[in-house]
Amino acid sequence: MRALDIIRLKRDGHVLSREAIKTFAGGVADSSWPDYQVTAMLMAIFLRGMTLDEATVLTQAMAESGARLDPSDVLRPENGSTPVDKHSTGGVGDKASLVLAPLAAACGALVPMMSGRGLGHTGGTLDKLAAIPGFRTGLSVEEVRQTLSETGCVLFRQTAEVAPADRRMYALRDVTATVESIPLIASSIISKKVTEGIGALVLDVKVGSGGFMNDLAQARELSQWLVGISERSGLRTEALLTRMDTPLGRRVGNASEVREAIQTLKGEGPEDLESLSVILATRMLILGGVAGEDEAAGRVREALRSGRGVEKFRQIIAAQGGEPRVIDDPALLPLADREALVRATKRGVITRIDAGRVGHGAVALGAGRDHADAAVDPGVGIDLLVDEGATVNAGEPVMRVYYRDTASLEAALVHLQVATEVGEAAPPQRSLVMETIDGRTIQAQSL
Amino acid sequence: MRALDIIRLKRDGHVLSREAIKTFAGGVADSSWPDYQVTAMLMAIFLRGMTLDEATVLTQAMAESGARLDPSDVLRPENGSTPVDKHSTGGVGDKASLVLAPLAAACGALVPMMSGRGLGHTGGTLDKLAAIPGFRTGLSVEEVRQTLSETGCVLFRQTAEVAPADRRMYALRDVTATVESIPLIASSIISKKVTEGIGALVLDVKVGSGGFMNDLAQARELSQWLVGISERSGLRTEALLTRMDTPLGRRVGNASEVREAIQTLKGEGPEDLESLSVILATRMLILGGVAGEDEAAGRVREALRSGRGVEKFRQIIAAQGGEPRVIDDPALLPLADREALVRATKRGVITRIDAGRVGHGAVALGAGRDHADAAVDPGVGIDLLVDEGATVNAGEPVMRVYYRDTASLEAALVHLQVATEVGEAAPPQRSLVMETIDGRTIQAQSL
Repeated sequence: MRALDIIRLKRDGHVLSREAIKTFAGGVADSSWPDYQVTAMLMAIFLRGMTLDEATVLTQAMAESGARLDPSDVLRPENGSTPVDKHSTGGVGDKASLVLAPLAAACGALVPMMSGRGLGHTGGTLDKLAAIPGFRTGLSVEEVRQTLSETGCVLFRQTAEVAPADRRMYALRDVTATVESIPLIASSIISKKVTEGIGALVLDVKVGSGGFMNDLAQARELSQWLVGISERSGLRTEALLTRMDTPLGRRVGNASEVREAIQTLKGEGPEDLESLSVILATRMLILGGVAGEDEAAGRVREALRSGRGVEKFRQIIAAQGGEPRVIDDPALLPLADREALVRATKRGVITRIDAGRVGHGAVALGAGRDHADAAVDPGVGIDLLVDEGATVNAGEPVMRVYYRDTASLEAALVHLQVATEVGEAAPPQRSLVMETIDGRTIQAQSL
Repeated sequence: MRALDIIRLKRDGHVLSREAIKTFAGGVADSSWPDYQVTAMLMAIFLRGMTLDEATVLTQAMAESGARLDPSDVLRPENGSTPVDKHSTGGVGDKASLVLAPLAAACGALVPMMSGRGLGHTGGTLDKLAAIPGFRTGLSVEEVRQTLSETGCVLFRQTAEVAPADRRMYALRDVTATVESIPLIASSIISKKVTEGIGALVLDVKVGSGGFMNDLAQARELSQWLVGISERSGLRTEALLTRMDTPLGRRVGNASEVREAIQTLKGEGPEDLESLSVILATRMLILGGVAGEDEAAGRVREALRSGRGVEKFRQIIAAQGGEPRVIDDPALLPLADREALVRATKRGVITRIDAGRVGHGAVALGAGRDHADAAVDPGVGIDLLVDEGATVNAGEPVMRVYYRDTASLEAALVHLQVATEVGEAAPPQRSLVMETIDGRTIQAQSL
């Protein structure tokens, strides 16, 4: 089939055949489709949409366009379980991967976790790992397999060999206003997960000002597409829609977040982070076939209580070339040496700590990227000194800011000084997990 | 405004501001918009549409992107008339330009007629002119002005300097399935006419198998857009929707068509060609302000009868470097030396001579292009030996084919042998002009 004919079919609103979609993805991967045809096609997809089946074929074709890991080659779990990963759409202070991956691995799950860098106010796991002295994420396929077989977990970077069709397509979407298409977003995310060779996937879809989506209905739609494509690609999948109105934990900033993850693995972390990490690790064990519904949560809690989780993290750090003593000595992690306090402007109850504003403040400090090429400073960040619901006096410190220079501090304070809202009554307690979407939910819906 | 923001607005179905459209057309012209952004925008326009005002701004911006002729610089008609042109959407055997341009100029109209090459089964005026030995169409702006002031008419080729934004946009539309957008088609046509510096325009929109559109409703829609954009661009404009079910005249093929145009200017041509040429030239005189409604047709007929039309054509040919003796001696025009006859397969009345099939036969012979780079043979073609409504016996010749080699003849016969339909009763006489659309029609409609 010729590119022109495929573009015309989608332009006219037809459902494309498997062959047509594979031709498109192949043409993107091997550049036999020039940029101008790819972007005309992307706009046609954006405006005409795709069916779940079309998006699934696109996902698989993008996954097949490059290198793939097959963990079962090197390590086929004897208990009949399947490799499992978790993916988060990203949030402010979201260091749950650093807690749950060691916990799940400590419980016997095989966790090949590929991550990308952060962009905008939602941080990326790779940037947090880069704060650990010596930690290498740019591993060859061989190194990934070896680390996985040694420790049961590997935290690695997406390389140019992984899903090149997705990489080229994403770059073109970014400059042609075709990013915000749910079928294309979902295909892009799942195509990379498929290359990990996993058999199960837990999705953490963040909803709120600190996440990629602020609207529950939109997040639900994205979750349905993610789960639908992932299940049709052979992965047992669940999406948890979790609240991202306020930062997760009390630390925002790359090295600070590693510190807080370690603290949490030691059982001394903030309740929301521990709770979410345990819930997600539990779902990983269940979907991955490592433990049943009745025992999974208990096994995760036991790994936490016993210290096996934190020891697993130490082992992973060492296996990937990092300095394992950071587990015992947080001072080995970078920290900017200038500090400033953000204070409450009046007496009252903290009714809101806005994740979006904190996230933008962190980006201004240099903890995140406002464009793809920006450098990230691992040592800057924000410590929240109070929780929502706490009573504060006027002038009482609510955040501590670690910064490098006055200009970046001032830029950050624009966001941070309005991030905290003080009112009269404590906000109601709300569950972190808003809802769960799985393959059964999807079958009951029509997309 | 950034390209990304403009694409996003059109993607979301907004009406673009004058500034946004000018930025787009400027970015296409100066290549500051890369191909991939232009094609994403074109697909968004294709699927979201444009208003008549948007298309008008686009048309003017494309016209302004390159060189423009201003005939009033060199020759401002003393009678208060305005330069006027005719544009046809193209049909099989359509050599009306070669008849009406000399006729209109002989009546005092100023006719700067820029033409393109043919593509597919609808021939192009440039290819017909190229059959005249020595005739030059690739003129500089200075030569165009000089010829126009000498003869009142110039028949010239669109150069790379004319509407470069349209040229680049058309090339990209051709490879991204974004050709068939009525606002884009209409903008492209009118933008080039605007560069001629004319004040009036007669459009001949062909309807039928031998034209670009087979469907009356579609042709009417295109006409409304053409007239609407052209009028808003300051040109007095009328579109005549004319029948193109059957070839115009009895000759198809470049040199043959020049021969038939000369014959018609001498008053010895086929009735349909003479009739259409007179009608269109009459509308040109009226819209161009050369003559009133009551006298224009008479003046055109007088130019035909007196021979002033054919003498004007001789003068134009000489002014553009061509061999003027072709007027008197048709043997100076090329003619392929091999002939074949197509014969009626049964006795009866000719109910149909299908223009589309004759046109495809002509392309197969080499008289037209099936792709943009193909060479055209001026000497090959088809003479129709009978008209619709004629009674024929089985085996009686209905067409004479002039060809170069057996392979092209055989390819042509595939079309030509089924081009003529023989039945029992003569088809009804139908008017060549199906309807007329002018600025008043458009104001009464909403586009």
